[in-house]
Amino acid sequence: MEQQVMLDTMWTLIAAFLVFLMQAGFAMVEAGFTRQKNSANIVMKNLMDFGVASLAYWAIGFALMFGAGNALVGTSGWFLGGGEGTFESLAWATPPLTAKWLFQAVFAGTTATIVSGAMAERTRFPAYLLYSGLISGLIYPISGHWIWGGGWLAEREFLDFAGSTVVHSVGGWAALVGTLFLGARLGKYGKDGRPRALPGHSMPLAMLGVFLLWFGWFGFNPGSTMGAVPSIADIAMTTNLAAAAGALVAMATIWIKGKKPDVGMAGNGALAGLVGITAGCAFVENWAAVVIGGFAGLVVVFSVLFFDRVKIDDPVGAISVHGVCGALGTLAVGLFASPRLVEAAGVGSEGLVYGGGFAQLGVQALGVVAVGAWALGASALVFGAIKATIGLRVSAEEEIEGLDIGEHGMYGYPEAFLGTNSLPTPETIEAARRAARESHEPVVLMPEHST
Amino acid sequence: MEQQVMLDTMWTLIAAFLVFLMQAGFAMVEAGFTRQKNSANIVMKNLMDFGVASLAYWAIGFALMFGAGNALVGTSGWFLGGGEGTFESLAWATPPLTAKWLFQAVFAGTTATIVSGAMAERTRFPAYLLYSGLISGLIYPISGHWIWGGGWLAEREFLDFAGSTVVHSVGGWAALVGTLFLGARLGKYGKDGRPRALPGHSMPLAMLGVFLLWFGWFGFNPGSTMGAVPSIADIAMTTNLAAAAGALVAMATIWIKGKKPDVGMAGNGALAGLVGITAGCAFVENWAAVVIGGFAGLVVVFSVLFFDRVKIDDPVGAISVHGVCGALGTLAVGLFASPRLVEAAGVGSEGLVYGGGFAQLGVQALGVVAVGAWALGASALVFGAIKATIGLRVSAEEEIEGLDIGEHGMYGYPEAFLGTNSLPTPETIEAARRAARESHEPVVLMPEHST
Amino acid sequence: MEQQVMLDTMWTLIAAFLVFLMQAGFAMVEAGFTRQKNSANIVMKNLMDFGVASLAYWAIGFALMFGAGNALVGTSGWFLGGGEGTFESLAWATPPLTAKWLFQAVFAGTTATIVSGAMAERTRFPAYLLYSGLISGLIYPISGHWIWGGGWLAEREFLDFAGSTVVHSVGGWAALVGTLFLGARLGKYGKDGRPRALPGHSMPLAMLGVFLLWFGWFGFNPGSTMGAVPSIADIAMTTNLAAAAGALVAMATIWIKGKKPDVGMAGNGALAGLVGITAGCAFVENWAAVVIGGFAGLVVVFSVLFFDRVKIDDPVGAISVHGVCGALGTLAVGLFASPRLVEAAGVGSEGLVYGGGFAQLGVQALGVVAVGAWALGASALVFGAIKATIGLRVSAEEEIEGLDIGEHGMYGYPEAFLGTNSLPTPETIEAARRAARESHEPVVLMPEHST
Repeated sequence: MEQQVMLDTMWTLIAAFLVFLMQAGFAMVEAGFTRQKNSANIVMKNLMDFGVASLAYWAIGFALMFGAGNALVGTSGWFLGGGEGTFESLAWATPPLTAKWLFQAVFAGTTATIVSGAMAERTRFPAYLLYSGLISGLIYPISGHWIWGGGWLAEREFLDFAGSTVVHSVGGWAALVGTLFLGARLGKYGKDGRPRALPGHSMPLAMLGVFLLWFGWFGFNPGSTMGAVPSIADIAMTTNLAAAAGALVAMATIWIKGKKPDVGMAGNGALAGLVGITAGCAFVENWAAVVIGGFAGLVVVFSVLFFDRVKIDDPVGAISVHGVCGALGTLAVGLFASPRLVEAAGVGSEGLVYGGGFAQLGVQALGVVAVGAWALGASALVFGAIKATIGLRVSAEEEIEGLDIGEHGMYGYPEAFLGTNSLPTPETIEAARRAARESHEPVVLMPEHST
Repeated sequence: MEQQVMLDTMWTLIAAFLVFLMQAGFAMVEAGFTRQKNSANIVMKNLMDFGVASLAYWAIGFALMFGAGNALVGTSGWFLGGGEGTFESLAWATPPLTAKWLFQAVFAGTTATIVSGAMAERTRFPAYLLYSGLISGLIYPISGHWIWGGGWLAEREFLDFAGSTVVHSVGGWAALVGTLFLGARLGKYGKDGRPRALPGHSMPLAMLGVFLLWFGWFGFNPGSTMGAVPSIADIAMTTNLAAAAGALVAMATIWIKGKKPDVGMAGNGALAGLVGITAGCAFVENWAAVVIGGFAGLVVVFSVLFFDRVKIDDPVGAISVHGVCGALGTLAVGLFASPRLVEAAGVGSEGLVYGGGFAQLGVQALGVVAVGAWALGASALVFGAIKATIGLRVSAEEEIEGLDIGEHGMYGYPEAFLGTNSLPTPETIEAARRAARESHEPVVLMPEHST
Repeated sequence: MEQQVMLDTMWTLIAAFLVFLMQAGFAMVEAGFTRQKNSANIVMKNLMDFGVASLAYWAIGFALMFGAGNALVGTSGWFLGGGEGTFESLAWATPPLTAKWLFQAVFAGTTATIVSGAMAERTRFPAYLLYSGLISGLIYPISGHWIWGGGWLAEREFLDFAGSTVVHSVGGWAALVGTLFLGARLGKYGKDGRPRALPGHSMPLAMLGVFLLWFGWFGFNPGSTMGAVPSIADIAMTTNLAAAAGALVAMATIWIKGKKPDVGMAGNGALAGLVGITAGCAFVENWAAVVIGGFAGLVVVFSVLFFDRVKIDDPVGAISVHGVCGALGTLAVGLFASPRLVEAAGVGSEGLVYGGGFAQLGVQALGVVAVGAWALGASALVFGAIKATIGLRVSAEEEIEGLDIGEHGMYGYPEAFLGTNSLPTPETIEAARRAARESHEPVVLMPEHST
């Protein structure tokens, strides 16, 4: 094998490893932003969805997304069979097929994980296992095929370099649907119907997660070249600037609106900037990356507050970060795509601010809407079917006691509930559960709550 | 230096860095799976064993393992002296000697760390320092020489690509011996002799550790090529599939047996899959990686329950994950080694399922038994000598109060024991220790407990 | 672009990513070494200083440091403008300008973060934002220009390979000044004036941070080649040996002096070894790396105890680790620079122990003193101005209640203060604040404390 191919392979693999570590980042963000009594459940979901996604994406996902097929879906290449020829849509990249698979598989795992945060603290674990397999093995690969697999949006030169739409908005829209089917957490809304803070249990873990995600994004975006090409450095720089701007603007926004620089909002601002720049990281200049990241940081604050107000209870802000900012970032390519960069890429056309007119912006909007419709519709089917069969939400009693003990039989932090030096006997556990039930004030159940 | 050499060097170094990060992974898994009162001691051991291993492996370990010598042991190359010629056994790899050393040194550090988990919550810190030096500087390098240093098992074409036996089973068997010499933790077995759960204090930290280990394994296995060769992509894929299968099967197994999907068991299942595939990651097909990983995930559950029942108290399951699954993974190469892959490697022969007969399986079994006997015997000497001299186990009183305060003079989580906003004065600490002693119910001391 | 350039680019980018992750390492070390009530504030500062540094270093910092100018400061290249020619001082490295920028930007972020640890638990958040921008955008780049930007110290062949002085000591001296302006934390000194332990809340997080920093240092030091050259392996090895020696010697020292092997001190010993070897990592032999790292581990213990005694209250030991050991490590190059390595580098001369006389040692001392004077003077201006205007320190009441609630409106660990299953209403929060105030014993305020 030639040296350039080995260079490309190394780059793709190392990037895949970094993206893999985003699983740890999501686990820490989601655990940190939720309560102790659900922490073991959260991290368990993050482990298992990647396990499920790895196998599902090997069996069918990769074939549906990149296998030879038609404009709507790949129809060959199950279990990586059929050889390189089956995966013409990835022929532009030089690494071995297994390297391409790994890089794409960690992306598929990301999509499933995004959903878990929004549905945290009240979803049945078996339901979660099922839908994470369906999202990473079926829903994500199909719309992914449209864009990266040579499908109908690729033909229209829709630009989504690293997946603002392909990955993040699909996850975000599925999260929205899941949250609607689930209803709000008990206690989230007071008797007056106004949202109340149910703050997460550990900002250090949440921020560790933000750092791990930012770190992983250096694989996510620059790695999407699937090769060692000069632009990887430029992409790393736009990625970093957008994250920085997102964090700063989100902090400033909530400081002005809420009187204090909220820590969680700043962390979500960094992530919003990263999601926002993902589509355009290879197509925009540094100044535009700052604009896009900053705008995402502004929007994410209002979006989180909006969903809170309309009683769509998303404990970690995943719908806003991944759905809303994913869509915005995709549209932003139509505004800011730089002539020299789209020319170098040989695809798409320059953005509106460069006088490129509405051509690219229109295609971007088409993609956002089409993928959004698919993700919303397909997840509605999945969540509807799960709700009608095995059930989507835990009992109110279990929710109050915590999913750790209800779903998994042991607390994530046993000593926080049972005391230090206390054995977890049936009696001590029952006492802890009773204490949880008794300390939980009566709440007006939201209409969405349908256990 | 040629570009291919630089490619190989970069790959080897980056892989070494990832393997280094497994130290953090072990620290988090072990801390998460044990109690707050011993958490500072755990992470201190993980830091110091790597410090000790780095210096011991520089001074003597690398020479014993890879230096010119005989079929049993290397006898030259102390302190990396003697130049490249002294290390003929690594001449197949192109990077500078220092890159090879670093990659091998992080492996040596791993072996010592494996032991620490099994012996957690009751081992004297000075004893730990001593045996971690002896394992990484002496025991591990000698059996390592047999296999990777051109010794007698290498001559028989024993196949252990990245160290299921060389690294993991050596650590696992040493852990078994250490645990036998130590005896069970106080309170682990009730008056009726049945095992009781002493759950770890933080599932989020434990799962962070699992993710960091999985991430590090992308250095451990694909990096064992010590060069940028095309197979690194295939190895990364088999590694990932085995981990995924291990997590899923372990979860399913404990769900069926124990009625709940236990979080710790699922995490250990992922690690079992990783340990299991380590020997064969370069020699087996994707489907076989799923089989091996899944089988390791099945076995690890029964193994953990078995050791618990026979009163071998291993707080984190290290004996099962590293010892048992390391041995299994090594044997599995004799079953599943693929003709095309052993041919490409130019070593070993195809496995039983391909009609290769028992030749390779026999060699694999020989290696497992020989290395097992060495590791068990040598660690028995080490632990026996330590027990007879400086002592292996802390006092019962210290064990109840926690090793953090006893060995290191301060809690890992001071506020959990002293209260928030409380100063750690002699008085507050004494009160916390007294409370620990008083809350600890009387236990029947196991016969193994011999302080 | 040629393959060697792509190799260099990949190496530089990957190293930059690792250095970025040091932000997470600093966040965990600083959070772990401080109290729960300030944990959200700590991690927020670590996120935001990197955001501020990224933008400031893009706008002006990189130009001041590497832009064409005079012996004292760069005067062109704002916002990366002017093209490659403007940055002649980096022409020796082949990667694209954006790769160089990213690698240097993560270094700038490190400097700001160092300060945050020393000033933890009592600094106003707006003040922190302001000075972290000034340090990373102004103070750090100017002295950096002297050494790495072709300035007057570079002309004298001052040797600081990866930044013991450029990065660490600048951060350390700024931390010293900041701490002097702030005064000690309430309760740090008893009525008798003797220092008291205010232990951090989580050794597992702190040690995770140490491991992440050690991991990131494999980017920091070997990455400072900004290219894939053979010496990267040697540099990785000296780096690792120094860290190991630092951890071991610090542990032994505090064990002898303080009767117990203190966990925080051992962690700081590893960091001290890393800081110490940073200047000389490419210029010294392995044995010298052990000596330098070990000496740093020895000194850091005495330094931490010294600053404690003279009432300079540095909660994490940043002044000792980064300032003192940064200076020592820089001087050590004048002692231990190896003839073969300085010859290969084509800069500097051999150290004193090789008979090189005092020439190099003198230059090293000159650089240490000059950069120290600059950092101390410039930070005194910055902190003085901040103290005189927006104020540097929170109120005594807020300090007792914790900066999380005072600066950010919510605890980092809400359940530790409000109880599990308790809503953070105005009433529950007020109760927690009152409890904090009441449990806080009266203290003699230090004269430095000037709120």
